[in-house]
Amino acid sequence: MHNQLDHIREVLLMGPGPSCVHPRVYQALSRPTLGHLDPSFISIMDELKEHLRSLMQTDNTVTLPLSGTGSAGMEACFVNLIEPGDRVLILVNGVFSMRMVEVASRLGALVDTLEFSWGTPVDPAAVEKQLDAHSYELVAMVHAETSTGVCNPVGEVSPLVRSTDALFLVDAVTSLGGMEVAADAWGIDALYSGTQKCLSCPPGLSPVTLSDRAFTKAKNRKQKVPNWYLDITLITGYWEGSKRAYHHTAPINMIYGLYESLKLFFEEGRDAVFARHREMHELLASGLSQLGLTMFVEEPYRLPMLNAVTIPESVEDEAAVRKRLLEEFCIEIGAGLGPLTGKIWRIGLMGHTAREDAVKRLLDAFDQVLSD
Amino acid sequence: MHNQLDHIREVLLMGPGPSCVHPRVYQALSRPTLGHLDPSFISIMDELKEHLRSLMQTDNTVTLPLSGTGSAGMEACFVNLIEPGDRVLILVNGVFSMRMVEVASRLGALVDTLEFSWGTPVDPAAVEKQLDAHSYELVAMVHAETSTGVCNPVGEVSPLVRSTDALFLVDAVTSLGGMEVAADAWGIDALYSGTQKCLSCPPGLSPVTLSDRAFTKAKNRKQKVPNWYLDITLITGYWEGSKRAYHHTAPINMIYGLYESLKLFFEEGRDAVFARHREMHELLASGLSQLGLTMFVEEPYRLPMLNAVTIPESVEDEAAVRKRLLEEFCIEIGAGLGPLTGKIWRIGLMGHTAREDAVKRLLDAFDQVLSD
Repeated sequence: MHNQLDHIREVLLMGPGPSCVHPRVYQALSRPTLGHLDPSFISIMDELKEHLRSLMQTDNTVTLPLSGTGSAGMEACFVNLIEPGDRVLILVNGVFSMRMVEVASRLGALVDTLEFSWGTPVDPAAVEKQLDAHSYELVAMVHAETSTGVCNPVGEVSPLVRSTDALFLVDAVTSLGGMEVAADAWGIDALYSGTQKCLSCPPGLSPVTLSDRAFTKAKNRKQKVPNWYLDITLITGYWEGSKRAYHHTAPINMIYGLYESLKLFFEEGRDAVFARHREMHELLASGLSQLGLTMFVEEPYRLPMLNAVTIPESVEDEAAVRKRLLEEFCIEIGAGLGPLTGKIWRIGLMGHTAREDAVKRLLDAFDQVLSD
Repeated sequence: MHNQLDHIREVLLMGPGPSCVHPRVYQALSRPTLGHLDPSFISIMDELKEHLRSLMQTDNTVTLPLSGTGSAGMEACFVNLIEPGDRVLILVNGVFSMRMVEVASRLGALVDTLEFSWGTPVDPAAVEKQLDAHSYELVAMVHAETSTGVCNPVGEVSPLVRSTDALFLVDAVTSLGGMEVAADAWGIDALYSGTQKCLSCPPGLSPVTLSDRAFTKAKNRKQKVPNWYLDITLITGYWEGSKRAYHHTAPINMIYGLYESLKLFFEEGRDAVFARHREMHELLASGLSQLGLTMFVEEPYRLPMLNAVTIPESVEDEAAVRKRLLEEFCIEIGAGLGPLTGKIWRIGLMGHTAREDAVKRLLDAFDQVLSD
């Protein structure tokens, strides 16, 4: 019987995620499945949580991978931390902060937005003004905006939010594992990420952390969390404590994958991993510049791991360029989203993709495709 | 650096799930990750949907694996199909129907329950009486109740529900792939399952199907689904149609795993797979009987894949028995849940676990442990 899995090509994943998976993570995925209450598995969970805390730079007890992709992390943070009628401020400058607006609104939050041009960062002065004039139960922002390639100044917004009573929620899907993310130092109450970006692991899990303050709010809600699957107090009953209570069956093998990717991160070392992401970003940016391509985002605000490139006017069919890169060169890059469709390409340098041979292969391919 | 994954033992998983994973599924999990919009991946998705339809015996367009475990499937079916104030009837005779009550109540449904003793099946006559006296927007039941080992008569309840306007929702987490599940013939409007039971795949995905009637209801809701991550109309925009819209990044490698497990199912053949589950169940039941153990459920209502065994009074510490089986024999069996804690063991014969060597190994181990 024909089996499509036998014919999967090795694609160099340079889009906005998933990124290339490390060979050791593939191995980890195929380790023998254990029961979700097996003491050996619980020991793996415990070590994984310690690594996650270190990666996120937090002492938060509630630090664990949720059984869904990064978007499940977003859903979980909002559904646990807000109740209908709560006032929420969302700092919007891309697809993922817009998604926050949609998620929070569906849950009955009264959402205010503060909008910034796509491709520019959140302006702390504007946030300060807004927080002086209005009070909120929660303020949310995206650290690394995957749709534009912009790095938002979480560290600068943090003291502004901390000077109010609001909880501070941060999307670190694309930044975690590729650049500094300091949950405690930045006063973050809730942070979620994904496995398929800088952690060199396939999509499927969403690492999250909640501060004690946030977890206390979740525990003292007026009404139960209207989402049993993502109820963090129930999930914590399985991930924490001396007696683990069954909630849902954990995705065992995906958890092996994340465990291994965290091992790889600490074996290479935090500083070395972040330096590699920066260096590969510089190599790519300078190579693109030599090809006559320009970056969409101003230099100081660029993310190392997500490079938005302005599509030159000479390119009539940008989809054809991406298609040729994929079909002829086995390289995937990303299209623009929303208002940036047709205006930018998005080149990911995340985790195992942030390698010199990958950058050179892409630059060579771009050179050929764009000069034809 | 010490790596716990290097020391994972091969445990014979004879609990209530996860069950043993087929070697080819492990291989599938470690195939190269593709982008979630790569045409090769979309082609894999398309074939997977066809296999799922065949497995579930349905022509429903909306048939796909959700990016979460079986409990996410339960959450998704309720959150898409009910709105606050909807009247819901849930047929309760175990943990998983109780979970349905909790999930639906949190979403604002007005839930009635019809309760049956744990270990006995739903009684269609009682359902008929209830449906004569009350009207509902949705009626929900569990096919294979994993907490008790009871097979509920979905095919007999179906015409009763179909004679009303209610949608009919069925949990087929443990039955799908191990016994007859005929979504269309049984008039089911929404069905969800999990990968970690009879499909020989690790936990992580929830195959679901929605009838046109159910999907139409989801599309015409008065308010948006209060769960962006599990909004089936958005998810369908990624899984269906000629232009696939990004919703969230699909768990690529888990989807490879499910694809392979469905291939295995159809290579062996539906009838052969079901016969194997029945035969292994009979082998186990007769072996247990020879050891002086009795089944918890009356013969006509027993599930082949989940065998509830009454713990003999001679056993003082049932947890010690399970611990010895795990530590000395590398066999996992399940404990009782809720009111059945300490009263039953649950022995799974699901998917790749339903093999003669597995049954014999467990019977030998039981013989040694119980006679000591």
